[in-house]
Amino acid sequence: MADQRPIGVFDSGIGGLTVLKVLAARFPNESFLYLGDTARLPYGSKSTATIRKYSEQNIDWLCQQNVKAVVIACNSASTSFLQHDYHDIPIYNVIEPGAKKAAQQTKTKRIGVLGTRATVKSDLYKEKILAVESSCQVFSQACPLFVPLAEENLDSDPVTNLIVFRYLNELIAKEIDVLVLGCTHYPLLKNSIAKVAGPKIQLIDSGDAIADWIQKDIDQKKLTANTSDNSSIRVCTTDASDHFQNLAETILNCKLQFEVVNVKSLA
Amino acid sequence: MADQRPIGVFDSGIGGLTVLKVLAARFPNESFLYLGDTARLPYGSKSTATIRKYSEQNIDWLCQQNVKAVVIACNSASTSFLQHDYHDIPIYNVIEPGAKKAAQQTKTKRIGVLGTRATVKSDLYKEKILAVESSCQVFSQACPLFVPLAEENLDSDPVTNLIVFRYLNELIAKEIDVLVLGCTHYPLLKNSIAKVAGPKIQLIDSGDAIADWIQKDIDQKKLTANTSDNSSIRVCTTDASDHFQNLAETILNCKLQFEVVNVKSLA
Repeated sequence: MADQRPIGVFDSGIGGLTVLKVLAARFPNESFLYLGDTARLPYGSKSTATIRKYSEQNIDWLCQQNVKAVVIACNSASTSFLQHDYHDIPIYNVIEPGAKKAAQQTKTKRIGVLGTRATVKSDLYKEKILAVESSCQVFSQACPLFVPLAEENLDSDPVTNLIVFRYLNELIAKEIDVLVLGCTHYPLLKNSIAKVAGPKIQLIDSGDAIADWIQKDIDQKKLTANTSDNSSIRVCTTDASDHFQNLAETILNCKLQFEVVNVKSLA
Repeated sequence: MADQRPIGVFDSGIGGLTVLKVLAARFPNESFLYLGDTARLPYGSKSTATIRKYSEQNIDWLCQQNVKAVVIACNSASTSFLQHDYHDIPIYNVIEPGAKKAAQQTKTKRIGVLGTRATVKSDLYKEKILAVESSCQVFSQACPLFVPLAEENLDSDPVTNLIVFRYLNELIAKEIDVLVLGCTHYPLLKNSIAKVAGPKIQLIDSGDAIADWIQKDIDQKKLTANTSDNSSIRVCTTDASDHFQNLAETILNCKLQFEVVNVKSLA
């Protein structure tokens, strides 16, 4: 039996589109409903209680749209919402898949984590990595300038390379062999980050890690795939923004239809 | 008769503190109540209707706290709210004082304006400058990376100098002699901006320009000064944030008490 309902994906803004892009490529038969909570972005600078409330409202809204699963494609929101099911559907956060993959891939047991101030402060990556492999050493670095640089589409720019170098300098000195991109914006700066990190450090992209978890749940019949070929991508935001729309089409490399929705009506 | 009620000042976040700093120095006998709407920042990326709604809620809240005037120390909010009085008290926006000062100071009649994407797109500075001096030519430049650089306190940093140079390059080629800092964050990068602009270009800081307007209203008895010496500064935010608090104390160069308030309860 095919389940044609879409998979819901949400973030405060455009970052989660890097996750959507990976998922759409890995599961071409699936439909996706993306919610960018642009009216209330960014989440990273807000309190845990506020982020939790926004996350619940977003999930409630996606469930009202009849999704079969929800991917929390935002590290700040994932920090506040680690349950694996809610309203009887599977919920995927962006922390645990990346943390588990990092713990499995490291040989030196020395792992770097890049994130926003809120993500680094939460120390959740460290906690989840150590839960898989307690002998690991985890070194975290907050990278507050990465999100604006990503939103300006400045990957491979000399300014970005310089800022990446500043943030990665100490982590490289710690001889890490795996580096978690602990914010869904960061894959948009992958060229600059990879250039500074060098070939000996493996980058962990959350989108890939979540896709592995979804595939496992499909294999184990916890989630039913869509086998028909009428898949679609619907993109909704909580506020209108030309900049979001231009950047979204650049990231997904296709023309999209955008809708503005009022998530707060659920509050 | 002295009016001991505070002057209200609001912004979406920390930017307006550069205005508060100038006002507190110019009017040492006045009390100030600052509201940083950190739960809903940034305003620059939101729609005009949303920004207008937030501005009204902020002004309503400040009026409930019994302020005698309100300074909208945020360019995006000013764009959506240009009335000079509301609830029977004077309202000062951040656009008109800076625009008027620029039009009065230029000798070459060639003026540069730096701002966020939303401010530049609104073209309001140009409109307000031309209303004062219609022979001026106005050249605008959006500087989306200035806010994050200011919030990282990176004035005079080589990275900031490089980014300032990119944004100012074309304006300098237009032979402007006055440059409006059209976002209340930008005074936090004044050293880098002045260094790139050079000594022939005069920078216009909104805080100074607003202080001139307030002084004029006091002189003309439209606003009553506080002549007692029990002045105070109260800082409220709509969400808790250590980063805001640290930066606020750095900007104002003093220890502050912070309160979290729920502005949306007025909505």
